[in-house]
Amino acid sequence: MTVKKIKNYLQEYSYLKSIQSLLHWDMETMMPSGAIEDRAARLSYIQGKIHSHITAKEYKNLIKELESKKLRPLEKKLAKELRWDFDLYEALPEQHVKDLSHAQTIATHAWASARKDNDWKSFRPHLQKLIDLKRKETGFYKAKKPYDALIMLHDKEYSSDEINKLFGDLKTGLLELTKKVKKDKTFVKVKDLKGPFDIKAQKKLSAYAAALCGLPPEHSRLDISTHPFSINISPLDQRITTRYVKDNLDSLSSTMHEVGHALYEHNLPREWEGTPFQEAISLSVHESQSRFWENAIGRSREFCKFIHPKMKDLFPKAMKGVSAEELYQVFNKSVPGLIRVESSELYYNLHIIIRYEIEEMIFNQGMNSEDLPEVWNEKYKEYLGLTPKNYSVGPLQDSHWAGGAFGYFPTYTLGNLISGSLYHQMKNELPGFSKDIEKGKLNRISQYLKENIHSKGRSVNAKDLIGELDVKDYLSYLSEKFED
Amino acid sequence: MTVKKIKNYLQEYSYLKSIQSLLHWDMETMMPSGAIEDRAARLSYIQGKIHSHITAKEYKNLIKELESKKLRPLEKKLAKELRWDFDLYEALPEQHVKDLSHAQTIATHAWASARKDNDWKSFRPHLQKLIDLKRKETGFYKAKKPYDALIMLHDKEYSSDEINKLFGDLKTGLLELTKKVKKDKTFVKVKDLKGPFDIKAQKKLSAYAAALCGLPPEHSRLDISTHPFSINISPLDQRITTRYVKDNLDSLSSTMHEVGHALYEHNLPREWEGTPFQEAISLSVHESQSRFWENAIGRSREFCKFIHPKMKDLFPKAMKGVSAEELYQVFNKSVPGLIRVESSELYYNLHIIIRYEIEEMIFNQGMNSEDLPEVWNEKYKEYLGLTPKNYSVGPLQDSHWAGGAFGYFPTYTLGNLISGSLYHQMKNELPGFSKDIEKGKLNRISQYLKENIHSKGRSVNAKDLIGELDVKDYLSYLSEKFED
Repeated sequence: MTVKKIKNYLQEYSYLKSIQSLLHWDMETMMPSGAIEDRAARLSYIQGKIHSHITAKEYKNLIKELESKKLRPLEKKLAKELRWDFDLYEALPEQHVKDLSHAQTIATHAWASARKDNDWKSFRPHLQKLIDLKRKETGFYKAKKPYDALIMLHDKEYSSDEINKLFGDLKTGLLELTKKVKKDKTFVKVKDLKGPFDIKAQKKLSAYAAALCGLPPEHSRLDISTHPFSINISPLDQRITTRYVKDNLDSLSSTMHEVGHALYEHNLPREWEGTPFQEAISLSVHESQSRFWENAIGRSREFCKFIHPKMKDLFPKAMKGVSAEELYQVFNKSVPGLIRVESSELYYNLHIIIRYEIEEMIFNQGMNSEDLPEVWNEKYKEYLGLTPKNYSVGPLQDSHWAGGAFGYFPTYTLGNLISGSLYHQMKNELPGFSKDIEKGKLNRISQYLKENIHSKGRSVNAKDLIGELDVKDYLSYLSEKFED
Repeated sequence: MTVKKIKNYLQEYSYLKSIQSLLHWDMETMMPSGAIEDRAARLSYIQGKIHSHITAKEYKNLIKELESKKLRPLEKKLAKELRWDFDLYEALPEQHVKDLSHAQTIATHAWASARKDNDWKSFRPHLQKLIDLKRKETGFYKAKKPYDALIMLHDKEYSSDEINKLFGDLKTGLLELTKKVKKDKTFVKVKDLKGPFDIKAQKKLSAYAAALCGLPPEHSRLDISTHPFSINISPLDQRITTRYVKDNLDSLSSTMHEVGHALYEHNLPREWEGTPFQEAISLSVHESQSRFWENAIGRSREFCKFIHPKMKDLFPKAMKGVSAEELYQVFNKSVPGLIRVESSELYYNLHIIIRYEIEEMIFNQGMNSEDLPEVWNEKYKEYLGLTPKNYSVGPLQDSHWAGGAFGYFPTYTLGNLISGSLYHQMKNELPGFSKDIEKGKLNRISQYLKENIHSKGRSVNAKDLIGELDVKDYLSYLSEKFED
């Protein structure tokens, strides 16, 4: 009975979140530019509504009522997750939530123009404001160090100590590996496909790939935005975005990445609407899904074989004389670059580690926005041997900080590690796994993820589901591919 | 102080309405088809929220507090309008509001496919459900006759007695006039422009016309939907839709029509956010704005002169050898047709009168949906001499009934009568009015409407602003044009 009462109560929460998502999606893809202030006010209003709904005394009492009962294991887990969320929400004053929502909306908008115009100066005050607000926020939570509090918002299973250890080992391994690969020919000297790549054909390819991975067209949309993202408007309404440029085919991998997120949201158990069980385990596991589809599938030799004729159809000029094996090499070309989302698997985690280290400096060591570009450049020089020519390919390239999402970046690399484990697991458990991909039959794979991950929501922990993470396994996966 | 408290209270109302509008707009233009049930639930939720906010005891007390004070005339008017809205809202049980919202969402979706497939049978039960709900609703209000209650929701200044008188006279006049015009050559035998009309060029033309009429691109969007509409997401975010078909250029007039609505909403006084003073006087006055831009401007000889070179540019083949005067004749071609939104000014009001008479039969005489197609056909035969070949060009052509908007149609013809008055008024008060249009300088005209109508919101009555309506004036305007 108490569970039922809680479900009833949380249905409204799910509706409010749904509305918030639509306001966001619309703002990023459709809204006329002059409406930004109006929209910021509405988003902030909804954010406040969500907060007051989820921190209400009535709801607190329902959780207490549940906790006081003799519970079966699943109910016990539910109570635990409800309590976790409630304590986090309750720790934040409503005014802070509104201030943050407003600042995020304005900063994200400012970021989009700043990135276009390479205008760090106009963006910096917005960023500093968010840093100040998030610093203030860390004070509301109980955490060992300020940055730990922000990581916990995105993944509560990994402490910064654990991440430091994992990322430290990974960095050492990656720097060694990249040194080796730089001398190699296959993935370094391969010639890029020569554009231009017709935008209409790119759109077709993205839509095709999305459906192939199992995202139903009647329950999704694919649009364009400055920074690709995926958003759950409601379980039956998944929206993803990508960006198309004439010079390259990055739209394909970015689409497959977002499809991974969308499939997770689409497949969460609907009978638990509004509760933690209808949510992803953590952002790291979310990222494992997107990185899985983007890399383990989308950049595999088998998938390249399958998509090769389709690509010849769509881009006859660029694909002339290019074999499936050459396409595979192009898709995995590995030279160090400045842009995270364009990076090959080999360098990707170095981009993340840089952001992680910077966030750590901001929140644990008091660094401020004015020093950020310099530190950014130093680290890119050290880890990737490159210096950004301008801010747009430097610290302005990502929208995360403009959205206040500090502590988010490490989940990408945790996600990579998880996706590596999943890949090995599936290869063992699904006979004919590689053959399936080669034939473009991806439904058994999406079904596997649905059954084993998506449909469980937060009723399980990542560590129970996937096991302890291992840098060695992931590094050997990369070595196999790139020293191949 | 009380006014300030009321304004504070109603700001939340305006945010909720804004959210409702976005959920609607998105549903009609962007939402994946499989999300309809999810969306219906969210719309119904928001509808319920609006209802409970606007009927809360706290708010009722605020209105009473205002009413008990010694008020200046503007405050007195505010109190009157607040009371009017409150009584209407309070009369409706929240469950009814939710039921209606849900039924409207589902029926509108069903209508879109039914119209496409000429499938009256699948749509009829949805329509009947709405008729039943609206019949039930009339019982909640105090009104002389059931249909009066529904008219009042869209225009509270005109009783059905007044409308019967106006429409009766208008019908007689129109049937006489159309009989005469049928023998005339100019507007009957004129050859249509020969398509196809490139959709991209049509889009350009629509966007151009919207900006020309004064709708700022940074505060608006123009999209595509089955049935053109205009919606206010927020004052600084006006969205209109149209539909493009290759065979004709109806998209232009439909765009100018919706622009008229959008300008009204955009120019409502922002300092009265959420209050009746930030709302249009009535739907009739709203329609007067759309009909004014569509017809009095968009179908005028002067506008045709202005837009002629632009059209030659965009549609070189179709416009070859077509003079500005011929374009004027094409834009006013008057043969009776079956589709309301494609009708010339001359026949338009007959389409409305048919719908009005049918609604009157449904709500005052107990007619049901199963008899509707037959009555529809009889009336089209009698007034326009035509019989629909199928349902899609018959009672399935409009979305209004699917949206539960009974009592809405008469406001189109009331709006025409008002726009006629405005036209005469402007011609008298703005020297060089015609010359302005000929030069495409429409800003003085939009400014006039902004100052005299839009910026006043509901702080005035239509009858005070525009005077008593006169059929003779409007008929003589039509005679002048069509017997020209």
